[in-house]
Amino acid sequence: MRRPIRYIVVADGDFGPMTSKTANAIIRYQPERVVAVLDRRLAGRTVGEVLGFGGGIPVVGSVQEGLAPGANALLIGIAPVGGRLPDEWRAWLAEGLDAGCDVVSGLHTFLADDPVLAAKAGAGGGRILDLRRPPADLPVAAGRVKALDAYVVLTVGTDCNVGKMTAQLQLTGELTRRGVRTRFVPTGQTGIMLEGWGIAVDAVVADFIAGAAERITLEGAADADIVLVEGQGSINHPGYSGVTLGLLHGSCPDGLILCHQASRRYIGDYREEAWLRIPPLSEYVRVYETVGSMVHPTRVLGVCLNTYDLPEAEAHRACEEASRDTGLPATDPVRFDPDPLIAAVLKGREAKLARRAGRV
Amino acid sequence: MRRPIRYIVVADGDFGPMTSKTANAIIRYQPERVVAVLDRRLAGRTVGEVLGFGGGIPVVGSVQEGLAPGANALLIGIAPVGGRLPDEWRAWLAEGLDAGCDVVSGLHTFLADDPVLAAKAGAGGGRILDLRRPPADLPVAAGRVKALDAYVVLTVGTDCNVGKMTAQLQLTGELTRRGVRTRFVPTGQTGIMLEGWGIAVDAVVADFIAGAAERITLEGAADADIVLVEGQGSINHPGYSGVTLGLLHGSCPDGLILCHQASRRYIGDYREEAWLRIPPLSEYVRVYETVGSMVHPTRVLGVCLNTYDLPEAEAHRACEEASRDTGLPATDPVRFDPDPLIAAVLKGREAKLARRAGRV
Repeated sequence: MRRPIRYIVVADGDFGPMTSKTANAIIRYQPERVVAVLDRRLAGRTVGEVLGFGGGIPVVGSVQEGLAPGANALLIGIAPVGGRLPDEWRAWLAEGLDAGCDVVSGLHTFLADDPVLAAKAGAGGGRILDLRRPPADLPVAAGRVKALDAYVVLTVGTDCNVGKMTAQLQLTGELTRRGVRTRFVPTGQTGIMLEGWGIAVDAVVADFIAGAAERITLEGAADADIVLVEGQGSINHPGYSGVTLGLLHGSCPDGLILCHQASRRYIGDYREEAWLRIPPLSEYVRVYETVGSMVHPTRVLGVCLNTYDLPEAEAHRACEEASRDTGLPATDPVRFDPDPLIAAVLKGREAKLARRAGRV
Repeated sequence: MRRPIRYIVVADGDFGPMTSKTANAIIRYQPERVVAVLDRRLAGRTVGEVLGFGGGIPVVGSVQEGLAPGANALLIGIAPVGGRLPDEWRAWLAEGLDAGCDVVSGLHTFLADDPVLAAKAGAGGGRILDLRRPPADLPVAAGRVKALDAYVVLTVGTDCNVGKMTAQLQLTGELTRRGVRTRFVPTGQTGIMLEGWGIAVDAVVADFIAGAAERITLEGAADADIVLVEGQGSINHPGYSGVTLGLLHGSCPDGLILCHQASRRYIGDYREEAWLRIPPLSEYVRVYETVGSMVHPTRVLGVCLNTYDLPEAEAHRACEEASRDTGLPATDPVRFDPDPLIAAVLKGREAKLARRAGRV
């Protein structure tokens, strides 16, 4: 972008600790870019009061209130099921574009294809950036990741929105601090927004999911020894499992990290009808390893728990139980020591190097 | 279409018993619609000589030769990896459109988006029909198939192009002859071409694979007691497995039929590098049942072998081996008696009815 970004994050009606995933990621990792959050229900409160982090950033009830402290961009901060734009938001985005703000969106419906918004963007100073728009020239996967020296780790989950991106960002930060050349590979709109590159694999044409995953994994490996690929969905998510499997087979990971929200009992998008109970973690380990290894040998290195909504003692207990169930290291790398996962990744990397050296 | 269809099937450079899947399906099931096949390599021969079926339909070397006997449409008869249009074909299609022919395509690249071809179609009498273009309003899957009374069967495979569509067409024909209200649900361009409806699930945006599968399965069930859904790809196909799993979870099948080409040892798209050896059928049974049942209880009913390239004795032996390996009925329903599969489907249907009656 042309100037330091100062966002109004639009999360109307849905701002909260577990609901507004994109909003929360930008506030957690790049709070200096956020001047206000728009949610009419919560106007007058602070982000810190609502999320438990984010400090004094105000929650406002209109675009006008966000423009006052100097916003120059609007960011769509929620990802509704299906990714489509709530109709009433269109007027706010038009107001922002009229005021010269960029509009940044990760929705499936591309805002630049909306005639009204496109006309506003054409006339005013604001641009529309559709993060989910895929490249036009994606290939079918060819297994080129198999040949990499870099050690590739993919996060896989028990559901959507359990912390697959957060886990990789935490591990990337910690490995980088330790001097390991590590690259985070964004596969969703939030990761792309934070990193400035990547492909939203859930938005590509179905035949090219794995091809897209392969392309960005190779790109991430160009200057890194460890490549941490952001996972999507879950192997048993009724709506999105195809994205999950395409990503698993396209990125040919050497290792997997299984992510789970410790308090969750049902797949979230279907919780109202209590359709799909989340099976034991050990079953996920077995299924991800079996199905992943049909294409490229892989194993689960450890379990990453999201325990934000549990008291500390319960959170520790959840980590112990996960470790007992799976026989693997388990931690909440945001809340507790990420070292068990870091150690597992480094050990996996060493084993791969030894295997490759042994072959020469 | 406006008039009885008379196709020139364009399969240049790739017409053959196992290569030109779309061409072969139209010739097998609707030969009265085919006046010529265009393949310069084989011009002068007959379709029967090349495929072993299709009789005296001529193979020609130019569009002009196909127009002479009265063609009014061109059909793209091959599906290259990635589904894109070979550049040199564009001139033939333009020639056809100029002559007033419709152009029917199942490629990923939509011909109607090609400015040259679109201009020809706009000016002349010929229209462009892109069978793979998905509806604009697809939903995320919601599990609505679970509530159906109809018995849903999906074909799953060990690879692409092993006979998943053919199996369902054979079973649909046989069940219909026996008076069972049966509906074939097309999920790929060839099935759509034959049936005149359906969605190419490999061409939808990745988040909507399962939603698309759900929609057409429900549509198929509207007037049928048995719904036979066309499968796609394979759970271990490095490029297309995401499509396979989305279809498996979106169509919530009660039963599966595992399809395999008996002579095949490697996943075909990667056979040159001998990357992926096809594991035993019993492993596919285990994986498909495990992963499918994470969303909706399902089991494999039987094995459908494609033995077209084996001598008869070997073909029988392959069926016996498949049956021994899996403990399930196995047959080649094109070559031999389809009854073992028909019986398994009918038995599954009865068991579902009994379960549902027991619940009332």
